[in-house]
Amino acid sequence: MRPHVQPVLWKDRLILLDQRLLPDRERYLTCRRVADVIVAIRTMAVRGAPLLGVTAAYGMVLAVREAKSISELDRLAERLAQARPTAVNLRWAVDRVRSKLRTLDESVALHEARAIHREDAQACERIGRFGAALIKPGSGVLTICNTGALATGGCGTAFSVLLHAKRPKVWVLETRPRRQGLLTMWEARKAKLDATLVADTVAGWLMKTGRVQAIVAGADRIAANGDTANKIGTYQIAVLAKAHGVPMYVAAPMSTFDPNTPDGAGIAIEERNSDEVAPGLPAYNPAFDVTPARLITAYITDAGLRSARTLAARSLTRSK
Amino acid sequence: MRPHVQPVLWKDRLILLDQRLLPDRERYLTCRRVADVIVAIRTMAVRGAPLLGVTAAYGMVLAVREAKSISELDRLAERLAQARPTAVNLRWAVDRVRSKLRTLDESVALHEARAIHREDAQACERIGRFGAALIKPGSGVLTICNTGALATGGCGTAFSVLLHAKRPKVWVLETRPRRQGLLTMWEARKAKLDATLVADTVAGWLMKTGRVQAIVAGADRIAANGDTANKIGTYQIAVLAKAHGVPMYVAAPMSTFDPNTPDGAGIAIEERNSDEVAPGLPAYNPAFDVTPARLITAYITDAGLRSARTLAARSLTRSK
Repeated sequence: MRPHVQPVLWKDRLILLDQRLLPDRERYLTCRRVADVIVAIRTMAVRGAPLLGVTAAYGMVLAVREAKSISELDRLAERLAQARPTAVNLRWAVDRVRSKLRTLDESVALHEARAIHREDAQACERIGRFGAALIKPGSGVLTICNTGALATGGCGTAFSVLLHAKRPKVWVLETRPRRQGLLTMWEARKAKLDATLVADTVAGWLMKTGRVQAIVAGADRIAANGDTANKIGTYQIAVLAKAHGVPMYVAAPMSTFDPNTPDGAGIAIEERNSDEVAPGLPAYNPAFDVTPARLITAYITDAGLRSARTLAARSLTRSK
Repeated sequence: MRPHVQPVLWKDRLILLDQRLLPDRERYLTCRRVADVIVAIRTMAVRGAPLLGVTAAYGMVLAVREAKSISELDRLAERLAQARPTAVNLRWAVDRVRSKLRTLDESVALHEARAIHREDAQACERIGRFGAALIKPGSGVLTICNTGALATGGCGTAFSVLLHAKRPKVWVLETRPRRQGLLTMWEARKAKLDATLVADTVAGWLMKTGRVQAIVAGADRIAANGDTANKIGTYQIAVLAKAHGVPMYVAAPMSTFDPNTPDGAGIAIEERNSDEVAPGLPAYNPAFDVTPARLITAYITDAGLRSARTLAARSLTRSK
């Protein structure tokens, strides 16, 4: 499926849709230097784990252009990879572009960035098709945050599942404090999905009253054992899902799986400014949480469905 | 304890602190007619189940003044009682004032309204003392919505427990869509409580990471079997509490217990305008949910602690 919006473009510069202004205004930012990309990532002008990977890949093209030496390139690459700590796709993409570079050849970097972008779009398509098979026609599906075209290089991860499912009745969590649910509602409208917004306080009640037959969430990092870091609030909907007998699916490309992190305890959780919750008040604002693998019914990946058990077995094989 | 704010005053008119403007501005509204009181209740200028009872009691004084006959008084009383459907205190207070009136005697109505107000303040004090005994010094306590002086005729229900507890580390849920958590933060600051605001998405993660040793919520109506209607989001924190082995307490005066409603299925849940969630978007906005008695560790009332079992036994006795 063609995405309804292009949040990242390469036109000799890196052009990013400024998601902080959505859904009110569609304005694009131009990044000329790596520092611009880092600011865009930190301030969440661009967001979503897979899209952060695509963005960082193009950021590496700017890094090659900007660097006067390979060691300077490595410093810029490291700063880019550390712009936000939780999504593994960021470092994955930086490392992948970097691994292709023996010299400061911009065209090599651009070729790899475009490949990452294209492959992510293809992964979205496959995730959507694999996931749709799990959703009964016309059933209620709850989702959190934004996992659509605005979060990926294609039509989305969890959102792609909704796009490919048959007549889902979609429930969109507002996802405070950043309210990415509004981005999802904006995309749902463009895609003509039947979607209803709810406050984050309503999730449990939706399940209790029989309105939710499945939950589909994205992921920022999936540890080797299947523990999954995703938007704050994912953990509690997974616990609620278990209590109500509702399946909890996590949709993500293979680039979100991090074989180097054995389990959730090793995932850095970004804590953001308390002003995002309420300006001037003492607030605790973790941007992500970790859902233990035991609460996840299945992982919907571009390589097919996975269970926590198959992930753990693979991890075991790898470590032998 | 003296409350830090007086949200309802009688000065020959009914004077209400306009809670829609808090915490930015402290402005009072004057209600001269029953219709003014109904609008204030519906638009949530005044809110909180016990305070709705106090407000409605004074509203009955205006009704007596306004009515030309007892039958007109009954029509006004009925409109007042129906201003919002979920909190039982509203009808309880209207009925109590009405039961004292044989003629249209304003002084009789005012005497009863003042008694209801005074008794609610005393109930708050007792709830606080009974509840504080359940909270270990220095422990983390999660609360939802606003249950303080702004919600009662005294210093609060659940909030009174926090006020009377020893050095609690208070976690305040933002409580979308109306964000009553900001009212609680405003009161906590006046009371010099150690309070931290969190988005509603953070509740489960706080429990998972060991930051919460108890939950205290208020109630809008408690059915005969202990099923409790309270602010939307209460149900899911009760499920999360159970999953994490955290005790879930409900604090409410006896006027919130409704012997005429056998269980939660009989409680009307108010659905409010979707614009409260996000203007112009399709949204589902239930204002309350129902927490089954089995998820509630104890009820903290002005008459002491109750368990769901003792409530059910009493209900059984009554129905014999």
